[in-house]
Amino acid sequence: MSTIKYPGAIDYPNCTSTVKDHHSKRGMFLENDVNESNEFYRECNRALIYKKPTPVQVVRVDYPARNKAKIVEAYYRSPSTTDYNGVYRGKYIDFEAKETKNKTQFPISMIHSHQIEHLKKVKLHGGIGFFLVRFNAHEQTFLIDSQELIQELEQAIKSYIPYTWFIEHGIVIKEGLYPRLSYLDAVDAKYFKEDV
Amino acid sequence: MSTIKYPGAIDYPNCTSTVKDHHSKRGMFLENDVNESNEFYRECNRALIYKKPTPVQVVRVDYPARNKAKIVEAYYRSPSTTDYNGVYRGKYIDFEAKETKNKTQFPISMIHSHQIEHLKKVKLHGGIGFFLVRFNAHEQTFLIDSQELIQELEQAIKSYIPYTWFIEHGIVIKEGLYPRLSYLDAVDAKYFKEDV
Repeated sequence: MSTIKYPGAIDYPNCTSTVKDHHSKRGMFLENDVNESNEFYRECNRALIYKKPTPVQVVRVDYPARNKAKIVEAYYRSPSTTDYNGVYRGKYIDFEAKETKNKTQFPISMIHSHQIEHLKKVKLHGGIGFFLVRFNAHEQTFLIDSQELIQELEQAIKSYIPYTWFIEHGIVIKEGLYPRLSYLDAVDAKYFKEDV
Repeated sequence: MSTIKYPGAIDYPNCTSTVKDHHSKRGMFLENDVNESNEFYRECNRALIYKKPTPVQVVRVDYPARNKAKIVEAYYRSPSTTDYNGVYRGKYIDFEAKETKNKTQFPISMIHSHQIEHLKKVKLHGGIGFFLVRFNAHEQTFLIDSQELIQELEQAIKSYIPYTWFIEHGIVIKEGLYPRLSYLDAVDAKYFKEDV
């Protein structure tokens, strides 16, 4: 695989992707893979994408030592946006990652209404929005355009979207060591067709 | 003031900015003003910009009731990026907000190295990066391009940048009720000149 050149980016020789289609004893945690991929992409200067911190409502803080704050009462809050955003090839990128152990279907309940509303707005403002959906049983992760998946789930009569729909409408993301998930290649194929 | 139209945006009649140049008994908290302005801009569908949650390292969680997680030991972590990002007119927007009570100068130490590195990368990837700097004593908030301020502080011999430098290089942001800070008008003037 060759690295992709784009205006203003620096080419780091040791940042060539290592892609392999099979993997063994891989973690089942999509979030971890996405975070490691983003770190790889940042180090290569290919993109600047981060996971947003989980919002926490802090209620009480102790100061056991000078200048050292210890949070002793806090609660998780529901995020109002998606988990990941950043900039790639001059465009705003925004996405949510979901994984399921289900072999044949993706439960619609895994996608929350605030994520749908947020991704609709991303599109409205000219950003690129998508979902990364992993079927652990198939060891496959798909990139699906947010608009396509939202349309499908808003039209859905049942409480799930079949795995076969993802085969038809998604792009399978290549997996490897560095990056774990070459999801930006799928972004190129989907959103920067004319430049590839 | 007229609202700005851009492709794909919806015009909400009751979202016209109310700008006034004087304000009395205003809070001294820039962060609060920026958050309220972002909320206003989101409701108008003018932009989709959020403050990132403060990162917290959670060490211990109790479950006093089923499905209720109570964080009982956690610590604030240093963010690796800036405080605000999002999408406006199809472009990636990223900025940091700082305020000082100092009348004549802005202390360089208020801007951290991770913020400088991050904003350099935003530029590299084609995003729009800037600082909002408020001088509380003058009741003035400036928008300064990140590259200009970073260049100035990397060249600076002293530990501060004079207030007069901001007068010369920044754009004064109009203040009012809705939004508190019309900082997107300054973004238009600085980065979308040809469209205004």
